[in-house]
Amino acid sequence: MTLKTISQQRSHGGTQGVYSHASDATQCEMTFAVYVPDHAPGVELPVLTYLSGLTCTHANVMEKGEYRAACAEHGIILVAPDTSPRGPDLNGDDVPDTSADEWDFGTGAGFYLDATKEPWAANYKMRSYIEDELPAVIAQNFPVDTDRCSIFGHSMGGHGALTVALRHPDRFRSVSAFAPIAAPMQVERRREVFARYLGSDESAMRPYDAVALIEDGARLPELLVDQGTADEFLEWLGPEKLQAACDAAGIPLTLRMQDGYDHGYFFISTFMADHIAWHAARLNG
Amino acid sequence: MTLKTISQQRSHGGTQGVYSHASDATQCEMTFAVYVPDHAPGVELPVLTYLSGLTCTHANVMEKGEYRAACAEHGIILVAPDTSPRGPDLNGDDVPDTSADEWDFGTGAGFYLDATKEPWAANYKMRSYIEDELPAVIAQNFPVDTDRCSIFGHSMGGHGALTVALRHPDRFRSVSAFAPIAAPMQVERRREVFARYLGSDESAMRPYDAVALIEDGARLPELLVDQGTADEFLEWLGPEKLQAACDAAGIPLTLRMQDGYDHGYFFISTFMADHIAWHAARLNG
Repeated sequence: MTLKTISQQRSHGGTQGVYSHASDATQCEMTFAVYVPDHAPGVELPVLTYLSGLTCTHANVMEKGEYRAACAEHGIILVAPDTSPRGPDLNGDDVPDTSADEWDFGTGAGFYLDATKEPWAANYKMRSYIEDELPAVIAQNFPVDTDRCSIFGHSMGGHGALTVALRHPDRFRSVSAFAPIAAPMQVERRREVFARYLGSDESAMRPYDAVALIEDGARLPELLVDQGTADEFLEWLGPEKLQAACDAAGIPLTLRMQDGYDHGYFFISTFMADHIAWHAARLNG
Repeated sequence: MTLKTISQQRSHGGTQGVYSHASDATQCEMTFAVYVPDHAPGVELPVLTYLSGLTCTHANVMEKGEYRAACAEHGIILVAPDTSPRGPDLNGDDVPDTSADEWDFGTGAGFYLDATKEPWAANYKMRSYIEDELPAVIAQNFPVDTDRCSIFGHSMGGHGALTVALRHPDRFRSVSAFAPIAAPMQVERRREVFARYLGSDESAMRPYDAVALIEDGARLPELLVDQGTADEFLEWLGPEKLQAACDAAGIPLTLRMQDGYDHGYFFISTFMADHIAWHAARLNG
């Protein structure tokens, strides 16, 4: 596996890099961002993965997320992957790209699942990419302590962080989210999108729905979620459904309704340092 | 003067707004961003104006500048204007737009000067806009204490901040810059651009060159400048010329060469909170 360095820039006493590699999981070139705080030679740092929302690439949080100062302060590596395969694939064919028609399906909308339906099944393997391939790439190329991993994300990426962690609670020291899509199967349009990737069998969808996973017995030791009260997508996100599921399952959820905040990066960046400090207490504690 | 509200969003315990108005100075609609921290009713806050660099709009620093946390902490309003007139003017004609051909002239490259040469003279009055019109608009529409103003900027905006302040040292409590264009007349391409806006008479250019202004007797009580050592434009900026001019004039310049940092927002955002704290000490002291 050859990692290409697209850029490396100094920022907040560390290095903000952008890299790409030929992905086996998605059968195309995948780009991701990694921030590495300066550290003593030989030291291995904990790693926090941030999963982005619909329409985003690695660049949105890198430019607008305001995470570097906090990562440098706490000595945490932050990894920001892309949200779907994109561009021509390794065989020269085009990866299916629907972004011109639909902002919540196809390019920029991989939903961190492994598609089983054609034409998506060949490339849309974001679950495998995020769960298996990318962590291996990171471990091979960056000074990470693979025993100290945490994950968080925003909106579709909050859905990704919750579902990955609920399926693999042993892998993560901590999990948090900003305005996560918590119960996609309970939203008609989300079910439509899931059906196109996965087929209409409900059992194929449940591993990709945080509330369904909890109902099916998945557990986390605790969970932190921030949600803006002025979020224009509030009814599609379902924080109250997540609260109910966590209450029923005995999962301690800290759900903070943030007055007047919307769905965008001005909201995320406001609470970013706070989330990183929360993860740091669990990664470095 | 009617101010149009384009957007207002909660961020870092304040309101990030974007507004526009029909400008008399530039004879076109001008857009700017203002961040207002929450404050007690009736309180007037100090105002810090950030001038952006070549190619930027108000949005670059708003999205990537990481200033809101520090402004909220210190109770400072931050104003981020655009860098040139743009778009159709008030008479329905097009403002001259060269951006497709030249990134450092015309649109996004107003250089905070009042052009006297056609076709630029009708719209490219960014000096008048920044010095006179915009401060009046801000004073009328936001809870600012007009006795407590400071100014800073990046690259072309660093040039703008230094030259505006050197011409009006009584108006500002403090002045700082990130990688400012400090001696544009000593760079051939900058002289070319200035000549197209102002004519080739050197005396018309000197009010728009920080080093020349200092040589001609302008003074500031102190100055803070951060400059990355890996800045790809270093030879065009002239920090050593600014240092020499300040030394000769007895202006206390704190010039911090930041090892490995380049010219972009990953550099600016790293030192943003530090600059805001420095201004806050002078605005709130």
